[in-house]
Amino acid sequence: MSTSALLAQLDDVGRDPRRGGYSRHVFDPAERDLRDWFGEQARARGLDVHADRNANLWAWWGGPGPDAVVTGSHLDSVPGGGAFDGPLGVAAALGAVDELRATGFQPGRPLAIVVFAEEEGGRFGVPCLGSRLLSGSIDRDTACALRDQGGTTFAEALRAAGGDPARAGADPELLGGIGKFVELHVEQGRGLVDLGRPVAVATSILGHGRWRFRFRGQGNHAGATPLEDRSDPMLPAARTVLAAREAAARHEARATVGRLVPNPGGTNVIASSTDLWLDARAPLDTTTRAVVAELTARAEEHARAEGCRVDVTEESYSPTAHFDQGLRAELTALLDDAPALATGAGHDAGVLSTRVPTSMLFVRNPTGISHAPDEHAEPADCEAGTAALARVLRRWAA
Amino acid sequence: MSTSALLAQLDDVGRDPRRGGYSRHVFDPAERDLRDWFGEQARARGLDVHADRNANLWAWWGGPGPDAVVTGSHLDSVPGGGAFDGPLGVAAALGAVDELRATGFQPGRPLAIVVFAEEEGGRFGVPCLGSRLLSGSIDRDTACALRDQGGTTFAEALRAAGGDPARAGADPELLGGIGKFVELHVEQGRGLVDLGRPVAVATSILGHGRWRFRFRGQGNHAGATPLEDRSDPMLPAARTVLAAREAAARHEARATVGRLVPNPGGTNVIASSTDLWLDARAPLDTTTRAVVAELTARAEEHARAEGCRVDVTEESYSPTAHFDQGLRAELTALLDDAPALATGAGHDAGVLSTRVPTSMLFVRNPTGISHAPDEHAEPADCEAGTAALARVLRRWAA
Repeated sequence: MSTSALLAQLDDVGRDPRRGGYSRHVFDPAERDLRDWFGEQARARGLDVHADRNANLWAWWGGPGPDAVVTGSHLDSVPGGGAFDGPLGVAAALGAVDELRATGFQPGRPLAIVVFAEEEGGRFGVPCLGSRLLSGSIDRDTACALRDQGGTTFAEALRAAGGDPARAGADPELLGGIGKFVELHVEQGRGLVDLGRPVAVATSILGHGRWRFRFRGQGNHAGATPLEDRSDPMLPAARTVLAAREAAARHEARATVGRLVPNPGGTNVIASSTDLWLDARAPLDTTTRAVVAELTARAEEHARAEGCRVDVTEESYSPTAHFDQGLRAELTALLDDAPALATGAGHDAGVLSTRVPTSMLFVRNPTGISHAPDEHAEPADCEAGTAALARVLRRWAA
Repeated sequence: MSTSALLAQLDDVGRDPRRGGYSRHVFDPAERDLRDWFGEQARARGLDVHADRNANLWAWWGGPGPDAVVTGSHLDSVPGGGAFDGPLGVAAALGAVDELRATGFQPGRPLAIVVFAEEEGGRFGVPCLGSRLLSGSIDRDTACALRDQGGTTFAEALRAAGGDPARAGADPELLGGIGKFVELHVEQGRGLVDLGRPVAVATSILGHGRWRFRFRGQGNHAGATPLEDRSDPMLPAARTVLAAREAAARHEARATVGRLVPNPGGTNVIASSTDLWLDARAPLDTTTRAVVAELTARAEEHARAEGCRVDVTEESYSPTAHFDQGLRAELTALLDDAPALATGAGHDAGVLSTRVPTSMLFVRNPTGISHAPDEHAEPADCEAGTAALARVLRRWAA
């Protein structure tokens, strides 16, 4: 089946009528429907499907074993996300298996498709949670204690989904069995558009992290409280939003506040606290650290000036990831001299890259827009990406 | 029963574990529990209870009739509000009836306690919705089309609560039967603390309104989108938060942004749109209008500078209300030369004041904090307020 046809089966799953696009968060009904869909599709192709100890799904062609070739991506989305970020890599993997099966190919070593859990961190706040757990880059207790906005812990959600929190965490046996990993993903920029090419090979992922700034002031009545009596946490929060852009520009980094929550959030209420989340990224980890240190200092100054306090918490951090040089050279040659592109977006492939020989393929995105309903990839480019992935799998799993 | 004992019965209704304090929004389970409680309390005192066409509750001593004496307040809260704003006025009314009954008082004219619906506008965005509908200061169609955050219209919510949206709106017969109205309310400032007095008579309510600023930009990936390619609506929104404080200070007005919602609200997502709500108030309506006009112009400039757009919608506006001079003088004399205080907080009494001879009593608030969990009034002051209200009702309804 074509990759576009596979994606079309997901058109109606998890649409978000309020935000637009899709909201598919780990273990919510939409994401569970997608997991079920993946299981059915994989079994229909004769693959053995099981969930690992960290709620990542694995579909094996030939059974687990050493030196396996693995591809895959994720099915969850950001809130109000697009249709391609994640599902394209899973659908292309299924489509590539179809191409290999159609030619009578039989893998000479184990081949698997993986679906990682909570790649976007849309529910529990830590991106790539499934691959971080698998690889031990987050420990079980830390992960299990993460809470969603409703107060449910990851441990509770994992248990409700049929998993066992006591068995979550690093899985060296499963990880050690991966010989090579490749993730196909829609490009989240206009590199391929500018180059006029459908598929690229990834070079690196910007170091990136998430920090929560919690400003605390004094909740009060918006009408009855004179300005001079206020400790309104929205003011230092707003100054920090502006400082983030300014610091990012000066350091040639990226910094974004896309999530900001005043508490209690009433129109006629001065907030008692305001939380904002900073997403900061840069090619050099020292740059990212410098941006965050500077913003922390500025936030403290601004909070003090308004009679507020601020606490800054690092929720996740991923150093800059460089993909395996040997694999990059091999893929570039195999894929008709495919161009090389770096990305600012995080991926499970970035988490795995420090443990396993890892590579990524990008598929052209006509506008570069991602994490938004407008995210797109043309069907012909999806098929070109699938064909490229099939060539890689055929080579590696021969 | 003492007013404090009545309030204590509500201690556990509608607590908000996330925000702290209480979240009791019109027709939600907590607010319906409070309505049921009021009905039981009123019936236990021999009062006839019914809901009017706009979901306001009326408890009559002696049956509806012309030249009635009416007191009351509301039971809904802001999100994460305190225990006194609203319920104190209702409990004090019940307590005052107890005092009158204990002395064998029989009203010489109809006397009623009213509980107004959606005073805070916490669910449908327009404060004093019940009294505005009753008095015709908002029309039925406008009110019925208001939507809560889940998309439910006021018409749907009213119907689900047993009301008939087709019959909502101005009720001149009921309104015309009110001879005098008095609302008792916790003070939302430190006027009485500074004066060392438990009870004050209100003079006026600052003109106030609510405006929604909707900034639209381009949603995109927080990591993959270069700064120069962004149209991030959080930036002009943050500048508008700061401009609001600055303009309020310059105009000697009050302006607050306590509610701000980025859409979709993901940490790793540049927002596609950001809504913020401006609460602005000033003694002169021309001042409030000048603040809002200036902020609209600034918001447009800031939006343009970031490649965004902004739409500004007035959600409600209430001109400065001056309470009836004759009633004020009468209450001041009756209540041992009680001090006179203006307020920046809106009340149903302000809405009624243009149609009916209206007055208000304030009860001391030891910190002045309101619309927050810390809101408080000492039991002795609650009883002093209740005694003052009983004196007023005894005089008027004799």
